[in-house]
Amino acid sequence: NAQARSAIELRCQCIGTHSRFIHPKFIQNVNLSPSGPHCKNVEVIATLKDGRELCLEPTAPWVKLIIKAILDK
Amino acid sequence: NAQARSAIELRCQCIGTHSRFIHPKFIQNVNLSPSGPHCKNVEVIATLKDGRELCLEPTAPWVKLIIKAILDK
Repeated sequence: NAQARSAIELRCQCIGTHSRFIHPKFIQNVNLSPSGPHCKNVEVIATLKDGRELCLEPTAPWVKLIIKAILDK
Repeated sequence: NAQARSAIELRCQCIGTHSRFIHPKFIQNVNLSPSGPHCKNVEVIATLKDGRELCLEPTAPWVKLIIKAILDK
């Protein structure tokens, strides 16, 4: 579980990012990790309802929109 | 760990929200859970660098700004 790991591990969790749009209805939750000493990248990890975890690109407009949609719902 | 739980539990994780501003430098990660059958509320759970977990108010402007700051960094 990448979310549980992110609280304790001292390295980047993502080795790449998923580039295709994912509809918010498939997303169970989204974890945002700021960059820091453990990892120079901002990491956005979506957990889907089927249990899969996907790293998303923090700078992608559709990723920002999904996050906005979650907050505004 | 509220983040690990959020992937498997079928109820709301937050019983209230922390109302005071938290500087992003104290935040290790932020978990966003959309509302759904398990919980009618959008839940935003920040894990601080000291290990504490705080529920934040998704509609608070400072919470939105912190999330934006994490993504834009």
